[in-house]
Amino acid sequence: MALDMEKLIAHAKNNGFVYQGSEIYDGLANTWDYGPLGVELKNNIKRAWWKRFIQESPYNVGIDSAIFMNPRVWEASGHIGNFNDPLIDCKQCGKRHRADKLIEAYDPNMHADGMEPEEMMAYIREHHIACPDCGGHDFTDIRKFELMFETSMGVVKDAKSTVYLRPETAQGIFVNFKNVARTTRKKVPFGIGQIGKSFRNEITPGNFIFRTREFEQMELEFFTKPDTDLEWFSYWRSACMNFLKDLGLKEENLRFRDHEQKELSFYSKATTDIEYLYPFGWGELWGIADRTDYDLNRHMEYSKKDLTYLDPTTHEKYVPYVIEPSVGADRLFLSIIADAYDEEELEGGDTRIVMHLHPALAPIKVAVLPLTKKLSEKAEAIYAALSVDFNTEYDVSGKIGKRYRRQDEIGTPLCVTVDFDTFEDEAVTVRDRDTMKQERVKIADLKDYIAQRVAFK
Amino acid sequence: MALDMEKLIAHAKNNGFVYQGSEIYDGLANTWDYGPLGVELKNNIKRAWWKRFIQESPYNVGIDSAIFMNPRVWEASGHIGNFNDPLIDCKQCGKRHRADKLIEAYDPNMHADGMEPEEMMAYIREHHIACPDCGGHDFTDIRKFELMFETSMGVVKDAKSTVYLRPETAQGIFVNFKNVARTTRKKVPFGIGQIGKSFRNEITPGNFIFRTREFEQMELEFFTKPDTDLEWFSYWRSACMNFLKDLGLKEENLRFRDHEQKELSFYSKATTDIEYLYPFGWGELWGIADRTDYDLNRHMEYSKKDLTYLDPTTHEKYVPYVIEPSVGADRLFLSIIADAYDEEELEGGDTRIVMHLHPALAPIKVAVLPLTKKLSEKAEAIYAALSVDFNTEYDVSGKIGKRYRRQDEIGTPLCVTVDFDTFEDEAVTVRDRDTMKQERVKIADLKDYIAQRVAFK
Repeated sequence: MALDMEKLIAHAKNNGFVYQGSEIYDGLANTWDYGPLGVELKNNIKRAWWKRFIQESPYNVGIDSAIFMNPRVWEASGHIGNFNDPLIDCKQCGKRHRADKLIEAYDPNMHADGMEPEEMMAYIREHHIACPDCGGHDFTDIRKFELMFETSMGVVKDAKSTVYLRPETAQGIFVNFKNVARTTRKKVPFGIGQIGKSFRNEITPGNFIFRTREFEQMELEFFTKPDTDLEWFSYWRSACMNFLKDLGLKEENLRFRDHEQKELSFYSKATTDIEYLYPFGWGELWGIADRTDYDLNRHMEYSKKDLTYLDPTTHEKYVPYVIEPSVGADRLFLSIIADAYDEEELEGGDTRIVMHLHPALAPIKVAVLPLTKKLSEKAEAIYAALSVDFNTEYDVSGKIGKRYRRQDEIGTPLCVTVDFDTFEDEAVTVRDRDTMKQERVKIADLKDYIAQRVAFK
Repeated sequence: MALDMEKLIAHAKNNGFVYQGSEIYDGLANTWDYGPLGVELKNNIKRAWWKRFIQESPYNVGIDSAIFMNPRVWEASGHIGNFNDPLIDCKQCGKRHRADKLIEAYDPNMHADGMEPEEMMAYIREHHIACPDCGGHDFTDIRKFELMFETSMGVVKDAKSTVYLRPETAQGIFVNFKNVARTTRKKVPFGIGQIGKSFRNEITPGNFIFRTREFEQMELEFFTKPDTDLEWFSYWRSACMNFLKDLGLKEENLRFRDHEQKELSFYSKATTDIEYLYPFGWGELWGIADRTDYDLNRHMEYSKKDLTYLDPTTHEKYVPYVIEPSVGADRLFLSIIADAYDEEELEGGDTRIVMHLHPALAPIKVAVLPLTKKLSEKAEAIYAALSVDFNTEYDVSGKIGKRYRRQDEIGTPLCVTVDFDTFEDEAVTVRDRDTMKQERVKIADLKDYIAQRVAFK
């Protein structure tokens, strides 16, 4: 693999994309903080998703539901009792593992997450799978480890006050299906999307921001007429892949992985992962699932509320089927920085580090660089004017070539150089990150020029 | 008071601004979900804050730190052990109260949050304060009730694995002070802002989204040279008020409340609240505090890391002072919808409900309304084109006057009517929400026209 994860993490840290969480206290297992550039990149990712999947879609609207939900939601969704990891300990070295991951590491073609504990245990014994830490073959039985974080709400600590940190944003959408249909007067097919934090007490988080216990999801639940679900499944499967390509991710680093029948949840008719070739190998980026009418039916059963839909044209009454494209914002962030990172050899033997981020995603859109300090006043005025519309950086220190390199490293698509000619022609030199070509642009045209270059369409 | 809270809540619910959380399960105490219009309004509020306080400020940058932090952060910050509410029970009816709130309800000029439990108890007895529920005078002693939510992280449940949901976003900034200074090469004075969820297990949440256990903060920590802090305090105090006025909040509904000496935290040199006249009365909207070097000193002490700042010009070494303007996004949302809501009498005895939201905050910027269904094709093309740049709604059903009213109710600043003349003059009628005046605009100029009208400057 071309790109080393440690190098990427160091680059992210040194440039203010991602720091270790609580670093001055030696961190907290697998938490990460987005720095000044990271928060801009992440916000741009979220905005691009929202623009494409909510704003521009004639079908979809957004919501933002609370992290704390009535615990009965998690009974209905099946998370209480069924949302756990199969934990196994090596008796020899005491190291704790996820049984399904042991199996998948042993045979990458296996998909163990649909297997029952007994099946996994049998497989591990049959294939003499060894502990990856000590090589031993003596394991404990598999125990189920609950993945939901729980806490107490209210003044009295008792069973009734136990609440959970949501393990997914999806349920906040399902419970609002009727509210949204009523207040927006949307007709099926329509979708509800949301972006928000979810929490899972993973046994083995890791690979930087790929798997963390606190993460941000971008989920869409798309409600369809029952016999049209597979068409819509195919529609959103393509829409998600197109979105990733439009964000500039390289085609050779993306692939579909359609789930086989035996991998599917019992309620799902079809599921596809879009996988990305991370520095550590292929891994899931986006899951698109046909969840049928499972979730709405469960909520009808548990809440005793009628969630059926009455088609105002055909007068048919049905429980809608649901297509769920679900992607992690942090995971997409990781794909994007891994994909954009490059070390290039330049003419004359020079090298540069450059992040070829889509201009709409780049944390800084434009850097204003006066050629010398004497030009500061003019340059600062341009900086202030551009800052109203774009995330703009101002840099006056060091040689111009070095300042270009600094912007290349953080993926700034455009550099604006103010020189002495600027006073005469009221124009600046705009330098392109990728081609390194320069052109002269009138100050009066600068905002339109930049807006054009950094748009996400 | 002009506006009734129940009416506002009903309006918010019926139009998809805010629903009760987990409503189909009869809710979960004081949780709220933002609906399709609410999430857009809230995102617009957050964007306006970010634009003003981060993007346009030459001083400030943003971050997005994790909700889970190393528990030692909360020892250093003083939240472990000192972050609690004074709880008191009425022995007669069993109702639980916050002692400080009892005192403040008895005498609105009292600020009891700085009082010790013994002082509060003495005050309650001395003034014969009665239980607001049953009128009784027999209370239990005051007990301290911890406000941080706690949960367990990792596989083993023991004291070491206890983590907290952050009660404020501020500490995520303080622990990253050095990281940000290093990677951005910012020089003091500079600020770090962030927007994110915080959690407090309030005993008495209430007043709709005014006080909730899960809430979203927009906090800025501004680091200054020690002897310049009061100047910067005054700078940000004005900047916050100006921002609120620029968002369109009415001046008569806003006021400063400077804290008296005895109200101040022991480490604070100055604190001001910006208060808003909510439907239930004056209440805090924005707190601006001079926190001196308290937080950074505490983190130095607890982390044993050097957080002093070396001025590169003067070579002075010091621990920066901090000015903290902190506002709740949910509380600001409430101020904005309360301020915008109006019932107007029109000529001819008609009335309308209208939300005079700042166009930059309005969830829907423009509604495209074909005069009749025959004009759908043309209107849909305009809708699709506008959706690329603006949150746009399309509405074809009902009389045009009724459709205007619907947009007035949700605060849409502009309605675009497509009529039969449109085919001839390639123009549409644009109707203004506030003046209800109409003007003819060329389709070719429409995007620029709207962009101009909905900008936040």
